[in-house]
Amino acid sequence: MNAQAAYDELIRRSRELSTLASCSSLLGWDEQTYMPPGGAEHRAAQLGLLAGMHHERATDPKLGELLGLVESSDLIADPISTTAVNVRELRRSYNRLTKLPRTLVEELARTTSRGHQEWVAARHERNFGRLLPSLETIFALKRQEADCLGYHDVAYDALIDEYEPGAKSKDLATLFAALRNELVPLVKEIAAAKKKPDRSIMTREFPIDRQRIFGETVASAVGFDFRRGRLDSTEHPFCSGIGPGDTRITTRYDPRQFADAFFGILHEVGHGLYDQGLDPSHYGTPMGEAVSLGIHESQSRMWENVVGRSRSFWTYWFPIARQVFREALTDVSREDFYASMNVVEPSLIRVQADEVTYNLHVLIRFELEAALMKSDLPVAELPGAWNEKYQHYLGITPKHHAEGCLQDIHWSAGLIGYFPTYTLGNVYAAQLYGKADADLGGLSEPFARGDFSGLLDWLRQNVHIQGQRFRAADLAQRITGSPPDHRPLVKMLKAKYGEIYGI
Amino acid sequence: MNAQAAYDELIRRSRELSTLASCSSLLGWDEQTYMPPGGAEHRAAQLGLLAGMHHERATDPKLGELLGLVESSDLIADPISTTAVNVRELRRSYNRLTKLPRTLVEELARTTSRGHQEWVAARHERNFGRLLPSLETIFALKRQEADCLGYHDVAYDALIDEYEPGAKSKDLATLFAALRNELVPLVKEIAAAKKKPDRSIMTREFPIDRQRIFGETVASAVGFDFRRGRLDSTEHPFCSGIGPGDTRITTRYDPRQFADAFFGILHEVGHGLYDQGLDPSHYGTPMGEAVSLGIHESQSRMWENVVGRSRSFWTYWFPIARQVFREALTDVSREDFYASMNVVEPSLIRVQADEVTYNLHVLIRFELEAALMKSDLPVAELPGAWNEKYQHYLGITPKHHAEGCLQDIHWSAGLIGYFPTYTLGNVYAAQLYGKADADLGGLSEPFARGDFSGLLDWLRQNVHIQGQRFRAADLAQRITGSPPDHRPLVKMLKAKYGEIYGI
Repeated sequence: MNAQAAYDELIRRSRELSTLASCSSLLGWDEQTYMPPGGAEHRAAQLGLLAGMHHERATDPKLGELLGLVESSDLIADPISTTAVNVRELRRSYNRLTKLPRTLVEELARTTSRGHQEWVAARHERNFGRLLPSLETIFALKRQEADCLGYHDVAYDALIDEYEPGAKSKDLATLFAALRNELVPLVKEIAAAKKKPDRSIMTREFPIDRQRIFGETVASAVGFDFRRGRLDSTEHPFCSGIGPGDTRITTRYDPRQFADAFFGILHEVGHGLYDQGLDPSHYGTPMGEAVSLGIHESQSRMWENVVGRSRSFWTYWFPIARQVFREALTDVSREDFYASMNVVEPSLIRVQADEVTYNLHVLIRFELEAALMKSDLPVAELPGAWNEKYQHYLGITPKHHAEGCLQDIHWSAGLIGYFPTYTLGNVYAAQLYGKADADLGGLSEPFARGDFSGLLDWLRQNVHIQGQRFRAADLAQRITGSPPDHRPLVKMLKAKYGEIYGI
Repeated sequence: MNAQAAYDELIRRSRELSTLASCSSLLGWDEQTYMPPGGAEHRAAQLGLLAGMHHERATDPKLGELLGLVESSDLIADPISTTAVNVRELRRSYNRLTKLPRTLVEELARTTSRGHQEWVAARHERNFGRLLPSLETIFALKRQEADCLGYHDVAYDALIDEYEPGAKSKDLATLFAALRNELVPLVKEIAAAKKKPDRSIMTREFPIDRQRIFGETVASAVGFDFRRGRLDSTEHPFCSGIGPGDTRITTRYDPRQFADAFFGILHEVGHGLYDQGLDPSHYGTPMGEAVSLGIHESQSRMWENVVGRSRSFWTYWFPIARQVFREALTDVSREDFYASMNVVEPSLIRVQADEVTYNLHVLIRFELEAALMKSDLPVAELPGAWNEKYQHYLGITPKHHAEGCLQDIHWSAGLIGYFPTYTLGNVYAAQLYGKADADLGGLSEPFARGDFSGLLDWLRQNVHIQGQRFRAADLAQRITGSPPDHRPLVKMLKAKYGEIYGI
């Protein structure tokens, strides 16, 4: 078999694996949207069967042979050619999957499954001790996983690489420390400011059916294509790309929380626009897939925060919102509405945090999981370390562990190395937005007219259509002239909140 | 490998195949309910991949070996034991799949796919000539299929067997002729009757949201379990059993057609109750599956017609319906409402036909496809033969072929032998209902009180929980003392319509 034939076969298999995985995506979407409760047990059997079939095919030694054939040819001479990129990333996935012994994979599956149940119970009981044994095993197994995968510097890197290929904890630590040094004082300044926006506006009565219609209208207006997508309700919102032409976003409505569903929709719209912007002709291959979780999150955060919580956005949308939510907004000014959705205040729960403090929540988790992976911090001492950091960075301390170190699902699910991608998303969002704003001669003016197509086109061309041609940091470097950099984010936050809080 | 081990492995594979097929069911359900239009192409790729994986596993020669091992053992000594039944039916499926050469399967898939497109166009153009070449090829291929599958009497039998295992066209011809001899005069008598129910009541304004709530309420009240099922909207209503604990029914709403959605829901509820009544411990094996399309249809027709269009049903539900649909029903009496939903009138379109004439529509198709399979009737002469039979049995003639021989999707999709199961369903429904009514000392009294549990329990015990232990005719014989028999249906229709029309 010549190299070209090997490459073609590799691509055929890659597409088939993606199509198979996409069947699981649809089953997963249904599980969280429409499946009746009685279907849960059978759904687990369906997903288990498909996962097994996928794993068997994804670790087929034939794939390794095909990769070897292409890698030793001149087909990959140009490292950013479609061929070289696809081979690079297929090799990465194949290695990650085949380096892990089956026993470890199974033990991790068992332990995280039990861990999830223990987490639910521990959180309910506010009892960290309940989760401790599982969590200790999980961190031990994840260290083993990292050893199998290999790393240069620290074990944590091997895990981060799953979500953010190529990112290193050392670089992240530098980036996050720089961010922390700017944000901690900023949060204090804001807390001390005399101006206090009225956050209660967000908790007036916003009827759910109107929230849905308004949310869909805005989603459509910023470019989400409902002929190639849907918006549904769920408990834990997510975006699922079922396949080219089928991107599904979800949200959760509360009639007394306007911001939850609305910015939740815009967040998922950001993910969805990325998915809808991928090149369908590359579907099922790395060139048709998103770069990393960090870049994915940059898209969601950009539409949610940089765009959706901006003054110019509401210059256009507030008069419409006031017609849709007449009773809630009749006596509210645009400025008060804008300030109300931009309250900054130290809080204990990450998923409810504002745009500024959110990064400190993430930073705490990043520092803690880095220490846990190194065994610098024994798992048993996690609650104390958690509370200490919350006091140190945010000036507040959880009253109990359910609003402290038991709040997130990630660790008990074995998702170590996932948290940093949230803040990477914010960093990339500010960086990319700054460049788009400069390239396009200012975005606030078109936004104020309800025109969001300039930004979307720019993102499609610079980010979406590129697939995995570049790793995240390289992509940022190519587009903005710099790898991930905290300064655009800090600058943006200072300018925005300096004005809102008069500091 | 001993016989027991072979049997266990057979069952493991059978369950796995069912679980795999159930993933396709969910994808199919989604395709017809929520999938955005842009997802169609990828959905075809997903379904194609899963179908290929399923076919590969279902025709694995290892299955044949395992079947052989068990068949030559004494594990199947008792022919109605779980083991023997599962082996009998798994053998049947395996043989049907492996007897067909791959080339024929592929040619049929291609031809029916093109046939479907030609049918859509031909129907739109009202031009039978457009469909003729495809239809000729399809009947030729289906004759080849029958030859591969084998048969004793006529080729048609091999095709009927796919939908109604064990049924023979000769017996069906006898049954249908007997039915025809009773129904043709009955339809004429009804047409000549002086009493004419006011059918316009059904076409008043019934708001869709209220139709949905009323339909769900009734579905739940007769026993459909919404914790283990759903009701959604679709273009072409169907019931899909995704797996144990997950049964999904669908309907289509028209604010000016009360009967369409309401009896559509009850029809699918009938299918759904059968699905929900199967033994979950036998899931994925023949003992946990429905007997045949005819028996399945007996359940849907029973709830739709025998129960749902009965006077006692509306004794309970009419006062409630009148509150829900105040504007439409305020000046309507229960008797007029009951008569309005039971208008009998010769018409051209099968799917809109009433309970009595419906069987004549099916009979015409049965006679025609039997003749087409024998080549007694050349496909080119189908339109003439169709119109002649409509004139002969129903006294009306289509104005064009779209309301004549182009109205149904079945033949162009290669579904030959499917039609007779519709009338078999009506025959079995009357037979089973008559027996239940006798066993339970009369059902109209509990129905009038809104109690449908007696009938459902009886069906669960006598039909649903049996899975495929007995073939359809044997099941009828065991329960009612007779194989399919036209008399209970004729008796029921004569009694009901004799009273409504005063004849």
